[in-house]
Amino acid sequence: MMRTRPLKVALLGCGVVGSEVARIMTTHAADLAARIGAPVELAGVAVRRPDKVREGIDPALVTTDATALVKRGDIDVVVEVIGGVEPARTLITTAFEHGASVVSANKALLAQDGAALHAVAEEHGRDLYYEAAVAGAIPLIRPLRESLAGDKVNRVLGIVNGTTNFILDKMDSTGAGYQEALDEATALGYAEADPTADVEGFDAAAKAAILAGIAFHTRVRLDDVYREGMTEVTAADFASAKEMGCTIKLLAICERAADGGSVTARVHPAMIPLTHPLASVRGAYNAVFVESDAAGQLMFYGPGAGGSPTASAVLGDLVAVCRNRLSDATGPGESAYAALPVSSMGEVVTRYHISLDVADKPGVLAQVATVFAEHGVSIDTVRQQGKDGEASLVVVTHRASDASLTGTVEALRKLDTVRGVASIMRVEGE
Amino acid sequence: MMRTRPLKVALLGCGVVGSEVARIMTTHAADLAARIGAPVELAGVAVRRPDKVREGIDPALVTTDATALVKRGDIDVVVEVIGGVEPARTLITTAFEHGASVVSANKALLAQDGAALHAVAEEHGRDLYYEAAVAGAIPLIRPLRESLAGDKVNRVLGIVNGTTNFILDKMDSTGAGYQEALDEATALGYAEADPTADVEGFDAAAKAAILAGIAFHTRVRLDDVYREGMTEVTAADFASAKEMGCTIKLLAICERAADGGSVTARVHPAMIPLTHPLASVRGAYNAVFVESDAAGQLMFYGPGAGGSPTASAVLGDLVAVCRNRLSDATGPGESAYAALPVSSMGEVVTRYHISLDVADKPGVLAQVATVFAEHGVSIDTVRQQGKDGEASLVVVTHRASDASLTGTVEALRKLDTVRGVASIMRVEGE
Repeated sequence: MMRTRPLKVALLGCGVVGSEVARIMTTHAADLAARIGAPVELAGVAVRRPDKVREGIDPALVTTDATALVKRGDIDVVVEVIGGVEPARTLITTAFEHGASVVSANKALLAQDGAALHAVAEEHGRDLYYEAAVAGAIPLIRPLRESLAGDKVNRVLGIVNGTTNFILDKMDSTGAGYQEALDEATALGYAEADPTADVEGFDAAAKAAILAGIAFHTRVRLDDVYREGMTEVTAADFASAKEMGCTIKLLAICERAADGGSVTARVHPAMIPLTHPLASVRGAYNAVFVESDAAGQLMFYGPGAGGSPTASAVLGDLVAVCRNRLSDATGPGESAYAALPVSSMGEVVTRYHISLDVADKPGVLAQVATVFAEHGVSIDTVRQQGKDGEASLVVVTHRASDASLTGTVEALRKLDTVRGVASIMRVEGE
Repeated sequence: MMRTRPLKVALLGCGVVGSEVARIMTTHAADLAARIGAPVELAGVAVRRPDKVREGIDPALVTTDATALVKRGDIDVVVEVIGGVEPARTLITTAFEHGASVVSANKALLAQDGAALHAVAEEHGRDLYYEAAVAGAIPLIRPLRESLAGDKVNRVLGIVNGTTNFILDKMDSTGAGYQEALDEATALGYAEADPTADVEGFDAAAKAAILAGIAFHTRVRLDDVYREGMTEVTAADFASAKEMGCTIKLLAICERAADGGSVTARVHPAMIPLTHPLASVRGAYNAVFVESDAAGQLMFYGPGAGGSPTASAVLGDLVAVCRNRLSDATGPGESAYAALPVSSMGEVVTRYHISLDVADKPGVLAQVATVFAEHGVSIDTVRQQGKDGEASLVVVTHRASDASLTGTVEALRKLDTVRGVASIMRVEGE
C-alpha cells in the first residue's frame, strides 16, 4: 500500500548532524519509504554558507533563505538542526503556520520554549518531535512519554553530557586533575574550545528541564533547574569517593518529592556507588536511569552526541512524523496536565559527603557534631585523620534537606576550630 | 479536549500481571485519562477460577466466558495476559474480528504466530502491541521499531531471561555449580518448579525470534532460532572465563551477516568481556545491547519479569493503542518488507574458547594445531597445562564459522592424543 507521491522534507542546517541526516535519507531511501509507507524527498536545505561543497547534496536544493523554505507550503516535515534559540524558534513557528510538522534536535530551544512551540504545533494539528535533543541517539523521550505512559516516574538520574563524563572518567581512572583531563578532552575533540556550556552544566540543565517536564507531566522551566558545574571537582574528591566505594559523575536529577506533591530538577556533580549501573558509564557515553512505580529501575545507555547518533534519533522521529502525516494523525503532544509545583533546591533531600580541615585537638569532633545536630542533619559516619597539628574530618550524613545542609555548613565555617570546608559533595543513587 | 465516553478494556487473564494491570487502571485512572485524552474503563475480566477473591475488581465484571467477552462488540481494547498459544490465539483473532485492538504480553504466541496475527489486525484496521512480551518493563520493541526506524540495526545481543541470568550470576560470584545455583533460584522464586523453558533457552528463543523480526524487518520463525541451554555450564567454565577477563551469560543474539544479505538468530551461553556493558547485568535483571549503523551502541536495561514491571509495559501499550483508537489511526504494524533469508547456525561466524584434555607428551600441540588449520580455523591463543601425565589445552580461535568449528571438533575427537573435549564456548561482544 505504498503511496507514490513523496513526503517533502526541508532540512534547516547542514553541519555535522544535518549532512548525516541528508546522507542517510539518500542511502537508505528504500528502507525509509518501506517503513513510512511513502517515499521521502529532500526538498530543500537551508545553510549559512552556500558555497561549501556538500557531498551527495544536489546544489539546486541548497538555499540561504530558510524562511522562504519553511513558507513554501508544500513541505510536510521541517527538520531543524541549526541549534540555538533564534532563528530556530521563528523558523519552527513559521513551519507550523505553513502546515509542516517539525523534528528538532534543539535542546536549548526546547528547554526554553517547549511549551509555546507545542502550543503552536497543536493549534495547527502538527507534530513536534525532538528525541535528538536529549542524549543523542539514546531512545529516551519516546520511552518516557510513550512506553512509560501507564506508569508513574519518580526519579530520573542521567549522565546527559558526554564531555563532562569523559573528563570525570579520565580523572577517576588516571588520577588526573580537572585541568589535565579537560586538556585531553579538548585535544581529542570531546570538549569545545570554550567548554563553559558543558563543564558548568548549562547543557545538562537544558536536558534536565526537558526530561523533568516529560517525566512528571509538568512544565519545568530552565530557570527552575538548579545548576552547579564540575570544575571544582578535584583528584582529592575522587580519592574520597573511592574510599566510600563510589565514583563521581555530573548528574541531571529530576525527582518527585516523597509526598508526590512537587518536583525538583538539578544538575551537579555527585558521588554514586560503584555498584550503581550509572557508575560504569565510561568515556563520552550517556546513560539515563529511570525509577518508576511499576517498572522499577530502567537504564538507557548509548552515545550522547556526534553526527551519526544524533542523525539516527532525528530519522527515527522523521519516520514517526511522516507516518502520522500519512494517517492524518498526530503523536503525543505536550503533556503538562499534572502541573505540579517545582520546588527550589533548598527542599531537595539527599545525603552529603563533607570534608573539613580542622584543628587537631580534643573536642573538635564534639563541636562539629553539635552543629550538625542543631541543624537537624543526622550523621551517618565520621572519619578523622590527623597530621602535624592539622586534621581532616570526613562526615557523611543521612538524608537531609539542602537548606539544612547549607545552614550546617555556614555554622561550621564560623567555628574557630574549623579551618576550612574542603569539599561538599552530594551522594546519590543509593 | 477530554472525551467523556470511556474506552472499554477487556482483560483476559487475572494472574500476577493481569491483577496488577487492573489495579493500576483503577488507582491511576485520572492519570491514564489525561494521557489518553479519554477515560478508560475495565469492562470485563475473563478468568478460569471465578470464585477466587480479587481485591479491587468488581465481581460483576468477572466472567469465565472469554469468548463472549471479546465478541461483545463494544470493547475497544483487549488486554491478553493469559500466555500460551491457545486459547490466546483464537481469542485475539476473535477480538480483531469484533473491532478491538489488542495488547498482549504473550511471547510464545507472538514468536509462533506473530505474522498471522498482524495480518488479521491489519485486515480489521486495528493495533497489535506487545512490548511486555520481550524483557518485561524494558522499553525495547517501541525503541526498535520506532526510535530506530531511520537506522539500520546490525546486531542485537540480549540477556532476556532473568532466571538464567540469576543462576549464572550466582555461579560467577560465588563459584557455585549449576545445580546449587538453580536450587537457590528455585528457593527464592526466580526459577519455576520445572525450569526447562528457562534453562534450556526456549523462553529466550521466543524472544530472539520476536526481536530479530523487528530489528531486521524480516519474518524470523521460532524454528529459525538456534537454541542451546545453559545446564552444561560448569564452575570450571567460569574459571576459564575469568582467566580471559570474561564472564558467561546466556545470550539471545540476532545478527545481520557481514554482507548484509542474510540474518541469524540464536540462543546459547557465551563468554563476554567484563568490560562489555552486558557483563555487569546482575541478578534477575535483563538487558539488551543493540548495534546499529548510525546510533552505534545502545543498551536497554531493567527488570525482565514480574507482575508490576510487566504491567508497566502493558499499560504503556494500552495508552498508545487507546490514543490510536481516538484518532482513528493505527501504530506501526508488522514490518517484514526486507524479507531477508534466515541462515542456519552453521553460517554464524564468531570466536570460540575450547578446552581439551590431552595426553601430556611432545607433539600434541602440533597435532591439534594442524587439525584447526586443516578446517580453516585460525588460532588466536593456546594455553597448555600439564599435570600427572595428563594435560589440558585451552584454545581461543579467531572468527570462524560454526560449521568449520564443528568440523574441527569432530576431527579433534578422533585424535588418539585428545582424551576429550571438556568444553566449547562461544566468545561474543568484542
